[in-house]
Amino acid sequence: MSKNRISEKLSTEPYKGVRDFYPEDQQFLTYLFSTIRGVVERAGYVEYHASVLEPAELYTSKGADNAEIINEQSYTFVDRGGRQVALRPEMTPTVARMVAARRRELAFPLRLYSLPNLFRYERPQRGRLREHWQLNVDLFGSRSPLADAEIIMVAYELMRAFGASESDFVVKVGSRAYIDHVAQENALSEEQTKKLLGLLDKKQKISEHDFSVGLRELGVSESVLSPENPPPEVVELLKYFGDAGVGTVVYDPSVVRGFAYYTGMVFEVFDTHPDNTRALFGGGRYDNLTALFEDASPEGGVPGVGFGMGDVTIRDFLAVRGLLQPYVPPTAVYIAVTSPDLAVEAQALAGTLRREGVNVAVDFGEKKLGDQIKTAAKHKIPRLIVVGENELATGVFSIKNLETGAEEQVPQEELSRYFNTL
Amino acid sequence: MSKNRISEKLSTEPYKGVRDFYPEDQQFLTYLFSTIRGVVERAGYVEYHASVLEPAELYTSKGADNAEIINEQSYTFVDRGGRQVALRPEMTPTVARMVAARRRELAFPLRLYSLPNLFRYERPQRGRLREHWQLNVDLFGSRSPLADAEIIMVAYELMRAFGASESDFVVKVGSRAYIDHVAQENALSEEQTKKLLGLLDKKQKISEHDFSVGLRELGVSESVLSPENPPPEVVELLKYFGDAGVGTVVYDPSVVRGFAYYTGMVFEVFDTHPDNTRALFGGGRYDNLTALFEDASPEGGVPGVGFGMGDVTIRDFLAVRGLLQPYVPPTAVYIAVTSPDLAVEAQALAGTLRREGVNVAVDFGEKKLGDQIKTAAKHKIPRLIVVGENELATGVFSIKNLETGAEEQVPQEELSRYFNTL
Repeated sequence: MSKNRISEKLSTEPYKGVRDFYPEDQQFLTYLFSTIRGVVERAGYVEYHASVLEPAELYTSKGADNAEIINEQSYTFVDRGGRQVALRPEMTPTVARMVAARRRELAFPLRLYSLPNLFRYERPQRGRLREHWQLNVDLFGSRSPLADAEIIMVAYELMRAFGASESDFVVKVGSRAYIDHVAQENALSEEQTKKLLGLLDKKQKISEHDFSVGLRELGVSESVLSPENPPPEVVELLKYFGDAGVGTVVYDPSVVRGFAYYTGMVFEVFDTHPDNTRALFGGGRYDNLTALFEDASPEGGVPGVGFGMGDVTIRDFLAVRGLLQPYVPPTAVYIAVTSPDLAVEAQALAGTLRREGVNVAVDFGEKKLGDQIKTAAKHKIPRLIVVGENELATGVFSIKNLETGAEEQVPQEELSRYFNTL
Repeated sequence: MSKNRISEKLSTEPYKGVRDFYPEDQQFLTYLFSTIRGVVERAGYVEYHASVLEPAELYTSKGADNAEIINEQSYTFVDRGGRQVALRPEMTPTVARMVAARRRELAFPLRLYSLPNLFRYERPQRGRLREHWQLNVDLFGSRSPLADAEIIMVAYELMRAFGASESDFVVKVGSRAYIDHVAQENALSEEQTKKLLGLLDKKQKISEHDFSVGLRELGVSESVLSPENPPPEVVELLKYFGDAGVGTVVYDPSVVRGFAYYTGMVFEVFDTHPDNTRALFGGGRYDNLTALFEDASPEGGVPGVGFGMGDVTIRDFLAVRGLLQPYVPPTAVYIAVTSPDLAVEAQALAGTLRREGVNVAVDFGEKKLGDQIKTAAKHKIPRLIVVGENELATGVFSIKNLETGAEEQVPQEELSRYFNTL
């Protein structure tokens, strides 16, 4: 960087591990975010946001699990004022901070969602992304099992809104509270409890025999952690979904989630595709997180339950299922001109159409007509109007459908109605 | 940071100089972005995006002006792989990089917009923000004066869409090309040209006498830089807006814009409020920016013209003009319950309404009814339904308007129609 770069050419590559969103890519985010907003606002959630910059200590004080994340996988730097700053690796600590800051003024239950970008310093060789977008949905201030059910229902409704059928995914529910109960019943030490959580977490990746051996070493009976024996709070949850006609929620004691802050129900949404039965996203209940902050109430934190859902896994899921929509720009029509002398008239026509609600792009006539039409087609704009001397004289324009090649003659005064009723 | 923080309480403050967006704050961004999207998509612009992380060299190679910005005012750090990374201070270099990278596949004219967050390391004592959101609108691939006119027209239409009248603002247009012409006519050196630009830039802040002295020192006649003598390209532009019925575009030779990369038309939108005649936002033509990149065409860069508009100045402008809308959540109705035993029935009613398109939040009945109603009012949800034994028995619900206190009795089967026709 110390060399004189002025005479050198710059790379057009983005920074390593992050993405450029050209219009085709951005359209997926727009679709994702607008579908998400529809579903979560239907359930009473309201949007909040925060800066990607947070004091680094926000991620270091939750115990060893997360301290590891902040040290090895985080983007942290020291600013000019000597403050240690992090690019947020997850949103939950931020929303817990914001809720703790205003817990006296805020009303509960409080339903919040956000669509932040998150950063992880992934080792390059893994080929994983360093930045992704993640929906965060959280419900604060309720310890009701119905709050847990509502959060799972929002996750379910999202999958349905993306076009997934009930057979495309399954919601697996576990309980950290129940694991704690099992640990207590078996007098497990803190370290043994961690071992138990780790064993459950990797259950799908190890053999049944190794799992059984692991349990036996901890002195825990296999039957108390069998999918056939859900604890009472999970039984209640499954009954709720059964009554609501939702058939894709099941108990899976191996769902424990990575983060140390979960205290109750935990869940993960799994793809049921035979080639790819992986977790798409998940969340759970965390009742002590806001208690970490100085403004938290003396009687403990505000209870919370929520989940996060990343753009990359959902996009992959939709691509495999054939549920991605083809790119269509927001522009309804492109106006080309037979001569640059008519560009002002084309602009005037565009202005009229825009005032009547039609999205119009105009060519300035710097290239010949054929190239202007190619430009419209490359932009994937569905329709084209050519402005020439003849059209201006007669006031009748030909609208060309650039997909089918079909043309229609439409008088100027009916153009906006034509586009507004397509 | 080396101390054990686990036993200490964390601060609830955000990082210095950035903002938390609680729902009331976020709603302004939502309004701003959706109004913007409406206007710019009407004019044929399509959305793109990129990561906030960029290689730092993107900002160091444009000459001294910007090297200063990257050194003193930028967030830069070295990542674990030894790369120098910047949090983008502006979006134009990013979009120029993206256009240069795909200039063979992209079709021109190319209309792009984005709504990125930008970072500046402002000195704390100034009390200025370190992060803000900024609309960026750019038109690539045309050298037509009509492209300049279109960009100014988009800025004008945005102001009108925010509710500003023509008397609330004025668009002042200058020309960097004309300044270059004047410099050439007067045989000014590069340093003298810089001095001339600096003199014009501070014209509003210095006395007429000091301005005249400055011009005389450079040997430049005052008349060639008088607002009364617009250069031909500006005359053409003013005529275009006059013909289009837009009366708020004027020539001002003192508008030159800070960035070194402008090459032609430059403009700024000014508040006309007597207490605050400051520039709200602006932009201009930059025809050589993409030429800095390795994939640029041998015959030079793709011409560009565009502007940026920040959320903070626009919010201040709208607040002073009384154009900010009061906060209304997206939630149409809150369902309270007379007993927690009825919370499942309340959820079922909410589910029915949601399937019919109504945004509903539900209480779980953990607090008494009066406190549930206070919760709805604090969330500023406009209407309330109470679910009790009686309502469930009769199938008739009372809808309370939480602003006026008025109540209406509505049978269950007509509830969704009631809300959908409000």
